[in-house]
Amino acid sequence: MAITLDAQTADFETRFAAFLETKREVSDDVDQTVRDIIADVRTRGDEALIDYTKRFDRNSLSAETLRIGEAEFDAALAAADPETVKALELARDRISAHHLRQLPADDRYADALGVELGSRWTPVESVGLYVPGGTASYPSSVLMNAVPAQVAGVERVVMAVPAPDGVLNPLVLVAARLAGVSEVYRVGGAQAIAALAYGTQTVGAVAKIVGPGNAYVAAAKRQVFGKVGIDMIAGPSEVLIVADGDNDPEWIAADLLAQAEHDTAAQSILVTDDAAFAAAVEAAVASQLTRLKRGETAAASWRDFGAVILVPSLDGAVALADRIAPEHLELAFDAAEAFAARVRNAGAIFIGRHTPEVIGDYVGGSNHVLPTARSARFSSGLSVLDFVKRTSILKLGSEQLRALAPAAIALAEAEGLDGHARSVAIRLNM
Amino acid sequence: MAITLDAQTADFETRFAAFLETKREVSDDVDQTVRDIIADVRTRGDEALIDYTKRFDRNSLSAETLRIGEAEFDAALAAADPETVKALELARDRISAHHLRQLPADDRYADALGVELGSRWTPVESVGLYVPGGTASYPSSVLMNAVPAQVAGVERVVMAVPAPDGVLNPLVLVAARLAGVSEVYRVGGAQAIAALAYGTQTVGAVAKIVGPGNAYVAAAKRQVFGKVGIDMIAGPSEVLIVADGDNDPEWIAADLLAQAEHDTAAQSILVTDDAAFAAAVEAAVASQLTRLKRGETAAASWRDFGAVILVPSLDGAVALADRIAPEHLELAFDAAEAFAARVRNAGAIFIGRHTPEVIGDYVGGSNHVLPTARSARFSSGLSVLDFVKRTSILKLGSEQLRALAPAAIALAEAEGLDGHARSVAIRLNM
Repeated sequence: MAITLDAQTADFETRFAAFLETKREVSDDVDQTVRDIIADVRTRGDEALIDYTKRFDRNSLSAETLRIGEAEFDAALAAADPETVKALELARDRISAHHLRQLPADDRYADALGVELGSRWTPVESVGLYVPGGTASYPSSVLMNAVPAQVAGVERVVMAVPAPDGVLNPLVLVAARLAGVSEVYRVGGAQAIAALAYGTQTVGAVAKIVGPGNAYVAAAKRQVFGKVGIDMIAGPSEVLIVADGDNDPEWIAADLLAQAEHDTAAQSILVTDDAAFAAAVEAAVASQLTRLKRGETAAASWRDFGAVILVPSLDGAVALADRIAPEHLELAFDAAEAFAARVRNAGAIFIGRHTPEVIGDYVGGSNHVLPTARSARFSSGLSVLDFVKRTSILKLGSEQLRALAPAAIALAEAEGLDGHARSVAIRLNM
Repeated sequence: MAITLDAQTADFETRFAAFLETKREVSDDVDQTVRDIIADVRTRGDEALIDYTKRFDRNSLSAETLRIGEAEFDAALAAADPETVKALELARDRISAHHLRQLPADDRYADALGVELGSRWTPVESVGLYVPGGTASYPSSVLMNAVPAQVAGVERVVMAVPAPDGVLNPLVLVAARLAGVSEVYRVGGAQAIAALAYGTQTVGAVAKIVGPGNAYVAAAKRQVFGKVGIDMIAGPSEVLIVADGDNDPEWIAADLLAQAEHDTAAQSILVTDDAAFAAAVEAAVASQLTRLKRGETAAASWRDFGAVILVPSLDGAVALADRIAPEHLELAFDAAEAFAARVRNAGAIFIGRHTPEVIGDYVGGSNHVLPTARSARFSSGLSVLDFVKRTSILKLGSEQLRALAPAAIALAEAEGLDGHARSVAIRLNM
């Protein structure tokens, strides 16, 4: 059973602050192991990749079978349930349409002095997309990472996905095919990240690596950061649902459990102004739990990290939401739109009683890769902006240089950089 | 003397590839020291901050004197050379005007199904700006970091700057005042980063930390990343100048040295199609070096990391520029504009013979915090986007939910997440 916090009790602030500090993840210290694996892949290339894959994935590969061939894609597509393929196509098209709107515009202008300034956006040349193996090998995540890269104009999108015991989720290959990704390697873990960052005989190095992974993958991404770009390090998923008593408790319970079933470290929080409704939701959670395939996972998540927060009025809950800075914020009450406008820290907001967060996981069109663990205070979900970069442009003629020179020289001299001052002054015979 | 590479020799590709891999920084392993300092500041707060400041900066502070008072700002401003203050004001205004154009627009629309989607940008609530002490304590960097934060709408911008032996560059305080930053603490190193990330009795925690620093500061930023956001980890500065033989060799030599005087690990590269011009530039560098205050630093940089690359035609140098992915790219030849349009990887491009890179350091208006060490392949210079974050919005009515439900349910079931499927299905009595 989740904890209950009542905003009208005297110790609420203390308990809420402690709740915010709750660590949901024990990150194993795998840094040294990962460092060794990366060094080995850098030295031995394919050979190291093959060795680790045999050891960790119990899968025997050769340089020839590291990369997945066209025939395997064809077979995966042929074997897939047509309805699932159609759903993936719909998801791809909706993600693509929404992300097209995120393409940033170049800017170029001359200011009053005639100085030309500009910002120009270009796609990252090549991107590696990591996809976990096993039960967390989600085709929807392939789309959420690959489609924005394609929309951005990245020429080479490479995928790495481990095949533990030789088993690969064929829908991951279908999603890759639908997203236009054809260069896929069946490797995982820190060794895959090392291969993507530094390249091997078979795997060409990329400029940026994105996608979720386990502790080894996360540590490897941190270590190769700088050599290549990386996206965020994602933590366990979370939802904050703000709901009034006019909701069907079964609906809200289902939403809380959709989050909880991801992971025992996932977190579902309900904020409501109606204690009786809260009790009804808790009862519905208990009852639905018994009927979920992943009930054990969801039960552990709800027991250890779930929370019900009672507030005197939903309106006052904006401040709580901002402090929680949830990955997903679901607003199930009539005044949701006004509430949403006042929220500052949230990865994504789902407005109204007919927008369960799950729609955003698959077919809403927005991205499901979102900031977790309160990082919505300072970061954003995955977007086209993660696959482009900006070059700034400056262009002066001699007149403009003459106008700006005195200030530039004064500042260079104030900073003790007379070589800087000279680089300007020498052009003016000063 | 810098190395010379000739693109028309047989071993050029080998030598150029090796040149690209040159490490210019030896990063000391200070991780454990930094870990201990952060843990101590988290535990003991102000007391630890005061202890480390006494030990590392030889500066005795109390909780009352950690923060710089209004009188000190006033004194710094009163003592400053009026011409320098005017130059800082011009720089601030130009940076502000340019960065205002970077404010991203919100988006909200309904698609053909009536599904409402949106992206909403909000400023990060609070930002900590680290400013190094000693000779690298640059007022221009204060403006380059603080002004974009102010333009973004960050309510609380905090600065930390060490005062070794009690000495502080008063122009740093002037720049802070001009940029509207009034909360400044005289602390530095890993202890300052820890205080900004976790807070102490006196220093309130921030959501994001930006700004350059030494190895301890860089390591601390990496370690607190996740608890707070951070900007890039900047390496030593670099310039690539592409110039034809029609330039005054003295001008180009001055530009190469403006970069080299920053740091012995800085890098200046000249690409030209004119061997005689290259020789003239090298001679001018040698002669100007003797007249630079920071001549020793510049000489070491030019000797150890400087390079002259001879190419058969400037036009073919775009590919080289993209592989170098320079922080600064200066194009001093008539066809610079067309060349710039074809370059993909560069932090900033300076177009034409009258745009020395130094203008961009101070008063051009664009930001001088730019990606180094080839990271322009995957990242951008500092901008307003570093101080805002995006929340995505999704809103469905019952009709839209009904339209998207089958695909969402199909994908949830394909991924084995029946709790996800139920969260949608339950709303349709399916």
